[in-house]
Amino acid sequence: MDGAQMIAHELAIVPEGMIADMLTREAAFDAVEKVFAAMAAGEATNFPVVREALGHEDALYGFKGGFDRAGGVLGLKAGGYWPHNLDRRGLINHQSTVFLFDPDSGRVTGMVGGNLLTALRTAAASSVSIKHLAREDAKLLGMVGAGHQATFQLRAALETRKFEKVIGWNYHPEMLPNLQRVADEAGVPFEAVELPGMVEADVIITITSSFEPSLMANHVSPGTHIACMGTDTVGKQELDAALVARATVFTDEVAQSVSLGEAQQAIKNGVIAEADIQQIGSVINGTHAGRTSPEEVTLFDGTGVGLQDLAVAASIVEVAVASGQATVVPL
Amino acid sequence: MDGAQMIAHELAIVPEGMIADMLTREAAFDAVEKVFAAMAAGEATNFPVVREALGHEDALYGFKGGFDRAGGVLGLKAGGYWPHNLDRRGLINHQSTVFLFDPDSGRVTGMVGGNLLTALRTAAASSVSIKHLAREDAKLLGMVGAGHQATFQLRAALETRKFEKVIGWNYHPEMLPNLQRVADEAGVPFEAVELPGMVEADVIITITSSFEPSLMANHVSPGTHIACMGTDTVGKQELDAALVARATVFTDEVAQSVSLGEAQQAIKNGVIAEADIQQIGSVINGTHAGRTSPEEVTLFDGTGVGLQDLAVAASIVEVAVASGQATVVPL
Repeated sequence: MDGAQMIAHELAIVPEGMIADMLTREAAFDAVEKVFAAMAAGEATNFPVVREALGHEDALYGFKGGFDRAGGVLGLKAGGYWPHNLDRRGLINHQSTVFLFDPDSGRVTGMVGGNLLTALRTAAASSVSIKHLAREDAKLLGMVGAGHQATFQLRAALETRKFEKVIGWNYHPEMLPNLQRVADEAGVPFEAVELPGMVEADVIITITSSFEPSLMANHVSPGTHIACMGTDTVGKQELDAALVARATVFTDEVAQSVSLGEAQQAIKNGVIAEADIQQIGSVINGTHAGRTSPEEVTLFDGTGVGLQDLAVAASIVEVAVASGQATVVPL
Repeated sequence: MDGAQMIAHELAIVPEGMIADMLTREAAFDAVEKVFAAMAAGEATNFPVVREALGHEDALYGFKGGFDRAGGVLGLKAGGYWPHNLDRRGLINHQSTVFLFDPDSGRVTGMVGGNLLTALRTAAASSVSIKHLAREDAKLLGMVGAGHQATFQLRAALETRKFEKVIGWNYHPEMLPNLQRVADEAGVPFEAVELPGMVEADVIITITSSFEPSLMANHVSPGTHIACMGTDTVGKQELDAALVARATVFTDEVAQSVSLGEAQQAIKNGVIAEADIQQIGSVINGTHAGRTSPEEVTLFDGTGVGLQDLAVAASIVEVAVASGQATVVPL
């Protein structure tokens, strides 16, 4: 045996059950904002995504990896979607784990439960877009979608801006109490509306898993910021392509936006071009002006990238190790 | 929080330093033979390989994942090549870690140091090919290459068949004592030769990282089995294309063989076609006859697939857990 490989090091584990205590929404926001900036500056790169149907339990499984040179964060999120988990074994259907590596040596350094983390980093992404693209005087928040993910989105948005009211629509209206509860907790009034009622909103978050557009161009007033968080797969669509065409489009990663994000249909229909889509990180960095008028409709196509997971996981490990709460295993 | 995701489970860790005690060459051989068979039977699938130049430490990093439905093994090997590890920090340059997941639920179940494991599974692959493709009366083993990997190859081969003599060649002859030592340990005579001397060999293992062919058609006698283990990257080449054309070609995975394995140049030159290449698993399964005459030259193009790593890692975890030596962490 080569003696060199025996030099010991440590692995810090933060299991799923500890994430709620280890990760604040502020920390998730900061980590995501920073890594979006690094991506736009060319200092952080997402690797090609692997996503495979296993032919077992109807599961989808894969890897989202990346390297943030600026932050010194390397690794991947591995996992996917097991649609029968809840019914068959009382587990949530989305299951993932984040693994971190030392970019200087290639050795594994961290392992972090990825389930709650994924919900919080996705919510952080729309919040980052609201901070940088919504009008300063935005008062009314519209929610399209009312599932589990929507509650994370709403909670994060209400902490980002002082919204005075929330309105919400869902294809299954019986789920709207999910939104009502979050609004109540934040002390903000909530009202259920039909989709045309979204014309009142200054900011709209769409978070459905639809394959047909819900939000049409005439449902949206000038000056609105829309964060499209639901479309992450070829074939999905939340917004009418004409609405996408009317907006100034920003995204986390252009390659994903045009292929599997909200922009895919508008690109396919030829109503926008890839060159029309800006990285949100450019706005954070100040190399793109972002919103340029109070009438402009801005759109953030949040597709979800591995670097978000890695950035948030790295910040969790830092907190967990510093507070002595990580499970540290000698390797 | 969803209560469902709080259901506890366990992670079994087998760190790099324990692999030497946990993994016998027999176990590696059995695991690799079985998973090659499962691949050929369509019961095990490798996922697309991710391999990225990080632009940091000149490192290559990536993921090799797969799913073996037959064996119930799901996961990936993550890691790569850090060329300055040894010089700068006294670590070996190849660094990797294997992660195993429960295919029923998507939860992580195992983490296994991947450095020694990779060397042993690669050696096991050539041994599997020798068992199934070399002539029964093979007596003389030829080694082309004498680096660190070559010692693993030679050791495994000497356990697979009762070779009476080993001959070896290396571009840097000062490394040949590496082979001499392994042969001495096994009590088999060793002789350094020039490449034309390989005509004496019944089995030849090539394990160099060359970009020019070393072994030419006139260096190889009828009836020889050649295991080509060094070519794993676009542009590399160990054998003259004319020698590949003369042989019956088997491989671990056809897609890799034609794109980045030893067959790539012969395919590029048009001297063989993809359809000429058989999966070694078909021979193991008995759906392909394998060697059909004592004069036939057989060639195994060992490219290295994620399923090999996963199969061996799963067998290590089984041994380590059963013997109470795994580090078990509640998640």
